[in-house]
Amino acid sequence: MSLQPTAALARFVQQSQSGRLPPRLVHEAKRAVLNWFGCAIGASRHDTVSRAIAALSPFFGQPQATVLGRPERPDMLHAALMNGITSHTFDFDDTHLKTVIHPAGPVASALMALAEYHPGPISGLEFLHAFILGVEVECRIGNAVYPSHYDVGWHITGTAGVFGAAAAAGKLLGLSERQLVWALGIAATQSCGLREMFGSMCKPLHPGLAAKNGLSAALLAAQDFTSSEQGIEGKRGFANVLATARDFGQITEGLGETWELLENTYKPFACGIVIHPVIDACIQLRAQHPLSPARIREVRLRVHPLVLELTGKTAPRVGLEGKFSVFHSAAVAIIDGAGGEEQYADGKVADAEVIALRDKVSALVDPSIKEDAAHVEIVLDDGSVLTKHVEHAIGSLARPMSDADLEEKFSRLCAPHLPASHVKELSAAIWALDSRAEVAELAALSVPG
Amino acid sequence: MSLQPTAALARFVQQSQSGRLPPRLVHEAKRAVLNWFGCAIGASRHDTVSRAIAALSPFFGQPQATVLGRPERPDMLHAALMNGITSHTFDFDDTHLKTVIHPAGPVASALMALAEYHPGPISGLEFLHAFILGVEVECRIGNAVYPSHYDVGWHITGTAGVFGAAAAAGKLLGLSERQLVWALGIAATQSCGLREMFGSMCKPLHPGLAAKNGLSAALLAAQDFTSSEQGIEGKRGFANVLATARDFGQITEGLGETWELLENTYKPFACGIVIHPVIDACIQLRAQHPLSPARIREVRLRVHPLVLELTGKTAPRVGLEGKFSVFHSAAVAIIDGAGGEEQYADGKVADAEVIALRDKVSALVDPSIKEDAAHVEIVLDDGSVLTKHVEHAIGSLARPMSDADLEEKFSRLCAPHLPASHVKELSAAIWALDSRAEVAELAALSVPG
Repeated sequence: MSLQPTAALARFVQQSQSGRLPPRLVHEAKRAVLNWFGCAIGASRHDTVSRAIAALSPFFGQPQATVLGRPERPDMLHAALMNGITSHTFDFDDTHLKTVIHPAGPVASALMALAEYHPGPISGLEFLHAFILGVEVECRIGNAVYPSHYDVGWHITGTAGVFGAAAAAGKLLGLSERQLVWALGIAATQSCGLREMFGSMCKPLHPGLAAKNGLSAALLAAQDFTSSEQGIEGKRGFANVLATARDFGQITEGLGETWELLENTYKPFACGIVIHPVIDACIQLRAQHPLSPARIREVRLRVHPLVLELTGKTAPRVGLEGKFSVFHSAAVAIIDGAGGEEQYADGKVADAEVIALRDKVSALVDPSIKEDAAHVEIVLDDGSVLTKHVEHAIGSLARPMSDADLEEKFSRLCAPHLPASHVKELSAAIWALDSRAEVAELAALSVPG
Repeated sequence: MSLQPTAALARFVQQSQSGRLPPRLVHEAKRAVLNWFGCAIGASRHDTVSRAIAALSPFFGQPQATVLGRPERPDMLHAALMNGITSHTFDFDDTHLKTVIHPAGPVASALMALAEYHPGPISGLEFLHAFILGVEVECRIGNAVYPSHYDVGWHITGTAGVFGAAAAAGKLLGLSERQLVWALGIAATQSCGLREMFGSMCKPLHPGLAAKNGLSAALLAAQDFTSSEQGIEGKRGFANVLATARDFGQITEGLGETWELLENTYKPFACGIVIHPVIDACIQLRAQHPLSPARIREVRLRVHPLVLELTGKTAPRVGLEGKFSVFHSAAVAIIDGAGGEEQYADGKVADAEVIALRDKVSALVDPSIKEDAAHVEIVLDDGSVLTKHVEHAIGSLARPMSDADLEEKFSRLCAPHLPASHVKELSAAIWALDSRAEVAELAALSVPG
């Protein structure tokens, strides 16, 4: 008898055994966790999380878990919230391209806080196993309702993420199958997050809420707090209420055989993914030719139509606007050879040299160019033309970031906040996570001095 | 220039002055608050809240506020959650009939916890004023999206309640107009609660979440945590994403002139509202005639079609099922002369005398009978027939519960949990709330010795 989606996911999570995970999958989980740590530490001093802490710290419980990169030590639920927020603040986190879910934030933020609080030690492999299951649950639920759910206006990282956090936390807490059904139901009835909030601090709040609410759902279920047993597929359940079309086969088929985490990607650049091919091309040209901005007469881009639709801002004034400007992104990539968070600082967007080069950048839409491709021509003052065609941008599924690329990104993100020795120790610990006896120690390594 | 809905509500809340509230409105607020206290204290020992406390108490912060009727003293946010849960556990709370919102739970639960935590004393009038504004905001937002929003599958007490809690808490916190816009936006992006959960512990969880999340939204906004400024009406905001039709005039027209709280009703009986006319008629017949159940040959009901559709269970086995049985309800009303929570205890539903009379009850659908009406005939063993036609059930807008009725209901709900002297002191304090210097003391009166 084939189970309904909610029951099928509960059974899958309950029965899964870490010994049976393919090694490639475990390695991908470490890559995702490394990227999550870097993003969370990198944004740990941002106004967004500082304001959230200022608002909520009077209600923190016992010091149980770490806000990565910060000295505050709230209760586990608030730690999950804050790490979910910082993981998404730079919009630099991982992307499940099929659904545009950023999978790690909700799941890892819940799990790390729970691992720190948990009375018995949680091993690295237990952590990775629960992480893999959480990502599987959130992405399969996302697959079932994408794209109609996203098109309606839901921020799918929040709405699907809460299920991932609940499932992952439920696994670590050792919930029964029935309790996992309830955990998924309690998650379903807290599923939230509107795309209307994009551009405000509420966007990164969503994975934070997903982490905290999913974790609460698992805790409630552990005490036999009941919910509907068809939270996902019921007539008035998640999939029917929050989407106009749905395919439950995406949840139930091939469970435990195919793995959504293997479809995960990591951003090399701290801006909208549609600009990535252009930045990639500019950085490659800079690496191949000694380029002096003053000698550049013109930069000509040929791009996929979405690039100008989403990132066509010609004169950004602040860093956040720079992330939505392919012109700024190309200019700063040629000058700095990078597209990290620093390249989108307010000062960088207002820098005279960057602006001068930005104003020489023009872009032409070319429908024959794929989403992960771009064509860049740099015309020098002597009339010579440098050309680069990128077929698949770095960070795409076809050309994933290497482990070394990810470690370099991680180090750059951590550098402003942690001593270099801590950064190295932390990344080494993550790469060896599957043989580590206790995962909670990693969080401590993220705290400055 | 007419403001957009979110901005209009923010300005309305910010500018409202307690001195201008009509006395009738302030009195209605006291009635609603009395009813909220009674429901919350009455359900304070229920498994639902006990399990929630067991799950979440390890994460409670400093003891800041009261779980009404219980000894635990969590941080303010968790207190708001727990009181929101207990207020709705018996399904005995108030009803805004136009939208089926239960307005008091989300708003009063947020406000009372905030009043207890607040460093400066909050007066009774400030409390009532903020309560009135919160109810206004949640019911107007509900009016704008009802019925499509409810029909889609949203539990509107949760989804609209979060706005009410945010607005009310924002008023007490003295937020600026802009911060109130953000508070409503942060509320919008946390709006949640599925009707699929009806019949499980998640149903009363919804007003609890609304109270806690709305309160958090106001706290975040107070720290300038930003959201979209069109959280309600934006293209991907609440009203477009969570409803298939909407009428924003219901939000903006007559703000400050008409008051939704005056449309509030209170349940005299602890069961589905469609059975209330039958119970009312039975209790009236019992009061007018000395009725011995053994002498009753037959009880014949003529009812609105919804009665059998929603509450047609002929042989309920447990208390919760009894709430969905017009047959049990009529029998127990004749025997006990009441329809309180005790009449829906498991033991009462299994009581031999009740079952014997229940089996003599028959019901006929009569489309000419209105929703708040019923016709009851009791045939005695001597062949005589007692008849009662109720045109408007007690508790309907046309025949509201009197202040004395509400106080009687309050006392019954509190009796199992508090000494009679406390109960009297608490109700007297609520009736005098608008002249009280400090509202927080009321919560203390609800805690058993």
